[in-house]
Amino acid sequence: MNRGKFITFEGTEGVGKSTQLATARDALEVAGKTVVVTREPGGTPMAEAIRELLLSPRDEAVNDLTELLLMFAARAQHLHSLILPALQQGTWVLCDRFTDATYAYQGGGRGVPQEQIAVLEQLVQGEVRPDHVILLDAPVEVGMARARNRSAPDRFERETTAFFQRIRDCYLQRAEQHPLRYHVVDAAQPIDDVSRQVSGLITSLLA
Amino acid sequence: MNRGKFITFEGTEGVGKSTQLATARDALEVAGKTVVVTREPGGTPMAEAIRELLLSPRDEAVNDLTELLLMFAARAQHLHSLILPALQQGTWVLCDRFTDATYAYQGGGRGVPQEQIAVLEQLVQGEVRPDHVILLDAPVEVGMARARNRSAPDRFERETTAFFQRIRDCYLQRAEQHPLRYHVVDAAQPIDDVSRQVSGLITSLLA
Ligand SMILES: Nc1ncnc2c1ncn2[C@@H]1O[C@H](COP(=O)(O)OP(=O)(O)OP(=O)(O)O)[C@@H](O)[C@H]1O
Ligand SMILES: Nc1ncnc2c1ncn2[C@@H]1O[C@H](COP(=O)(O)OP(=O)(O)OP(=O)(O)O)[C@@H](O)[C@H]1O
Ligand SMILES: [Mg+2]
Ligand SMILES: [Mg+2]
Repeated sequence: MNRGKFITFEGTEGVGKSTQLATARDALEVAGKTVVVTREPGGTPMAEAIRELLLSPRDEAVNDLTELLLMFAARAQHLHSLILPALQQGTWVLCDRFTDATYAYQGGGRGVPQEQIAVLEQLVQGEVRPDHVILLDAPVEVGMARARNRSAPDRFERETTAFFQRIRDCYLQRAEQHPLRYHVVDAAQPIDDVSRQVSGLITSLLA
Repeated sequence: MNRGKFITFEGTEGVGKSTQLATARDALEVAGKTVVVTREPGGTPMAEAIRELLLSPRDEAVNDLTELLLMFAARAQHLHSLILPALQQGTWVLCDRFTDATYAYQGGGRGVPQEQIAVLEQLVQGEVRPDHVILLDAPVEVGMARARNRSAPDRFERETTAFFQRIRDCYLQRAEQHPLRYHVVDAAQPIDDVSRQVSGLITSLLA
């Protein structure tokens, strides 16, 4: 049986990741593929418990390495107990954020050196990388305006615009460094235009 | 001002770590030292929340790397926000378990390669190591018999005797590899004899 493909959706807050993940799932299911939709941090009960720890606002300042290690702790659980077994069975896995988000948020955002992230990526993933990264790119304020109407802001959503600007820059830089893996979509367009582009991308991956 | 000393207490379940930590604290306070008593995993609210995740029994099998990364996530928080600032101020830090327990439990017990643990030790601790490790050593069954009367067993306490035997062996091996740092105490002796030996050790460290 063919191994499924591992596709991740990346971008700053509110840019349309969840919306486009649904678009991609529909396109794949119409084409007869079995699809799992999941997210990071999270994806299993243990990993979701770690997500809760990571996202809850708290009085104590969280050490940058603690945050980084918690991200990879959740990832190890998710990857080895859900993602890899699914891919092995021929299921396509669509994941809302993955390691590129760690490079962007903990690296670009917090300032953790890329080499420290790379050490953990190697430890947890070995040679496993997403087959495709769909980067939904838009000015930071565009996503923030879209996301504004939601529930109380989590520990990341409380950060400054400058923090998210560094994250956007880091994503764009990684897209340049990995041109075969990254697909950058202009997410500032109207929703139907973004969806059309994502569907087109999925169709080309199926070909 | 002189840096405080960082002393850790190690050993398998129920061997007397908490008891002897109190003995050591008393001996230091009599000598006029400022002492902080803490534990791993834990020691700060965030790190205690990670401890809770690690120790709670759960249906989901926890990936070995997830467990390892959670241990070091808690350690980064504890070390950088509590232990190092305390030592800097001249306070002596007595800690119930530290990285030697990771080598013993996740390495010896679970079978995680020592090199993977060393990578995380370097990332989180740099060159920081305990000044002294007091290893309370006793046959596994001795500690288990002492600990038996307590609350419902946590995720580790549910393991087999063979698991704890590997842990004891690993501790003893590390004691041989680090003869200057490790102080092995026969913890199968009556409590007063163990306490006398620990007090004697503390007195010699103060000299
Ligand atoms: N291209 C678009 N134009 C206008 N509104 C959009 C567009 N894409 C998504 N939206 C809307 O913006 C809001 C945020 O979208 P969505 O939840 O998909 O973003 P997200 O990237 O998943 O956010 P988060 O980072 O918080 O998970 C939703 O209300 C969604 O309907
Ligand atoms: N040398 C000893 N002889 C007999 N009983 C002891 C001795 N040392 C401690 N105990 C008793 O054994 C029990 C376990 O001791 P203690 O809690 O100090 O162990 P511990 O190593 O901290 O356990 P845990 O690993 O569960 O934290 C306690 O009831 C304690 O009073
Ligand atoms: Mg979303
Ligand atoms: Mg104890």
